[in-house]
Amino acid sequence: MKVLVINCGSSSLKFQLIDMQNKSVLARGLVDRIGVQGSSLFKVAFNGDKEEREVRAGNHQKALETVIQCLTAPGKGPLTSLNEIDAVGHRVLHGGKVYQSALIDEKIKRIIEDCSIMGPLHNPPALMGINAAEKLLPGVPQVAVFDTAFFHTMPEKAYTYALPYEICKSYGIRRYGFHGTSHRYVVRHALQLPELADKEKKDISLITCHLGNGCSITASVGGQAVDTSMGFTPLEGLVMGTRCGDIDPAIVPFLQKNAGMDPEEIDTLMNKKSGLLGLTGISSDMRDIEEAAERGEERAVLALDIFCYRIIKYIGAYTFAMGRVDAICFTAGIGENSPTIRKRICNGLNGLGVELDEQANAAAFGCEAVISSPASKVLMAVVPTDEELMIAMETREVIA
Amino acid sequence: MKVLVINCGSSSLKFQLIDMQNKSVLARGLVDRIGVQGSSLFKVAFNGDKEEREVRAGNHQKALETVIQCLTAPGKGPLTSLNEIDAVGHRVLHGGKVYQSALIDEKIKRIIEDCSIMGPLHNPPALMGINAAEKLLPGVPQVAVFDTAFFHTMPEKAYTYALPYEICKSYGIRRYGFHGTSHRYVVRHALQLPELADKEKKDISLITCHLGNGCSITASVGGQAVDTSMGFTPLEGLVMGTRCGDIDPAIVPFLQKNAGMDPEEIDTLMNKKSGLLGLTGISSDMRDIEEAAERGEERAVLALDIFCYRIIKYIGAYTFAMGRVDAICFTAGIGENSPTIRKRICNGLNGLGVELDEQANAAAFGCEAVISSPASKVLMAVVPTDEELMIAMETREVIA
Repeated sequence: MKVLVINCGSSSLKFQLIDMQNKSVLARGLVDRIGVQGSSLFKVAFNGDKEEREVRAGNHQKALETVIQCLTAPGKGPLTSLNEIDAVGHRVLHGGKVYQSALIDEKIKRIIEDCSIMGPLHNPPALMGINAAEKLLPGVPQVAVFDTAFFHTMPEKAYTYALPYEICKSYGIRRYGFHGTSHRYVVRHALQLPELADKEKKDISLITCHLGNGCSITASVGGQAVDTSMGFTPLEGLVMGTRCGDIDPAIVPFLQKNAGMDPEEIDTLMNKKSGLLGLTGISSDMRDIEEAAERGEERAVLALDIFCYRIIKYIGAYTFAMGRVDAICFTAGIGENSPTIRKRICNGLNGLGVELDEQANAAAFGCEAVISSPASKVLMAVVPTDEELMIAMETREVIA
Repeated sequence: MKVLVINCGSSSLKFQLIDMQNKSVLARGLVDRIGVQGSSLFKVAFNGDKEEREVRAGNHQKALETVIQCLTAPGKGPLTSLNEIDAVGHRVLHGGKVYQSALIDEKIKRIIEDCSIMGPLHNPPALMGINAAEKLLPGVPQVAVFDTAFFHTMPEKAYTYALPYEICKSYGIRRYGFHGTSHRYVVRHALQLPELADKEKKDISLITCHLGNGCSITASVGGQAVDTSMGFTPLEGLVMGTRCGDIDPAIVPFLQKNAGMDPEEIDTLMNKKSGLLGLTGISSDMRDIEEAAERGEERAVLALDIFCYRIIKYIGAYTFAMGRVDAICFTAGIGENSPTIRKRICNGLNGLGVELDEQANAAAFGCEAVISSPASKVLMAVVPTDEELMIAMETREVIA
């Protein structure tokens, strides 16, 4: 079985073609700068080869056409015929009340559209990708895999904001959680770690830290999410590349009244100009911040301090929320590739019985690894995420 | 030494006259509905007597005049002469960068005025009270005791928001923390608990939960605050009577765009219509919510769940932030008087070694009590707060 996984942004279409038999990636790539006249870019890799070229992709359908032509190029592409694609899995940010991956029909498309108000940057392009795939791959089942779906098991006390109940109901305001596909993947993987083999699966309490350009942290028991740091939107929670995470919400009307910002500007401020970028003024990329901190730049040092401190506090909050924690997993760009950040966080958990294996930590880059010592009371691990594979797996489950 | 403690709201003036020799309250009372023509109300209690009557108090100076006349009423009041008042201590909400109690001069008054932008409901009336006291008690030293002052020891990583650095600097946006006078009092008191006598004072890690109509939670080490839940304003953090506490800050521009609310309306929504009131639609008073929950009203049950869950998460966050916790103290209206809430919180900490002494907890109403069992890994205690006494003590320290 072969699944084409598609992830559309407003001007990009990322894809992977995955053979589910051995979970291997047959091809991956993206079309970037869609709609930017004369300069759309197509990158693709398969069979060990890479290709990059300018293409004409005025919209998402044209972009997907490019992808499909490449995949089925006679004597060259990884597919001999389009018929080999058994299903298409679409990453969709916001599923609102739809809390599981779903076969796409008119009803699901309407829901994705309705949820655009909550995911204005992501849901509309996802719909464009879906419409394009429906046209270009007629008869092939299409599945929507929602980034919010993993969190449907959260209890009401974790997802309800203390705002007027009726307003929350009528506007759908609640904690949804995001990065769900990533957390689901890492949780499933972590539950299989041999170091946890002696525990009852249904009782295993995990904290998964997805630390990339976006950052979120999720508590789960027996594979089911019980709380997560992102909320109504992906803004809440940890400090991220350009997002502020938690702040006093009164700062928003304060800045509007005193700095004359309108809702759009404050939204941009909090989502695009804050986080590591806002703190340092240098970059939203953790690698740049770590370098600057090593040079002794004060604001970079502070940004690292805050970034790790907030993670440590969330780990504490979730440990107490669950009453215990068996393992803490790091994933995504920073989580998989920054021994420094992992070390700072683990050292911050010393008092709670976490013991880092310095060598194992220093050696773990983008690969699965246990980074705590055998004496550690909590297992610390690096578990690389694979959202595309998870989307393909979900897609297979839905059409089965 | 006798200190007059004054706490002014926009239409109220509360006071206590405290004899510092034995820390006894010689008189206490308030003038309410100041400026409401023909219906200002004066309540006072001293020498075991209570009095309540309508007065004319068109402004804070008239209100203070009423108080002073009563305190020095010949043959009746607790003072024979105004000269007996050695100092006046004023509660001031926001001290901005002034991080200690201060003798009031023109500079301090200017700072209180400058901070009105951050404490628009509290700093202006505090200034009115100060001006009134200066006029009516000339030559008597006046001290400003700031609600933010206790938190000046917080490290930068705890008080810095991940918003653009320059904007925060120019608008003074940071975590200030509030209820500082209460937390300071409870912390000082807790450090003297005989159950903590075997520990080095400088290492004692405390979490103090001020749970009243406003709620805040503070972590301190050796008597010095290291983090607190209220932030730039008293809105952030826990669920309160009418305040929402932590939410996704993106909800603010979302509601503005989609519900057509302006900054003023959203401010009112978050500060006056949310919290327990917003969740239940019944009341902002925990006693009403507890009763409704006992009757099985779903939204009241949910409100209790959320209220306690958020406290448990903060306790976890601060325990990990400090690396340990020796004692957790409950104070203020709910903290001192609700065994139910305390029990729910303590039960939520079971997994971490907290063991409640059910009897001691059930018996503790408004009095100091240890409510954990001897086997508990963390000392749980009720420590009634006394902000007025703390203000008087600070006032004495400043003029010493």
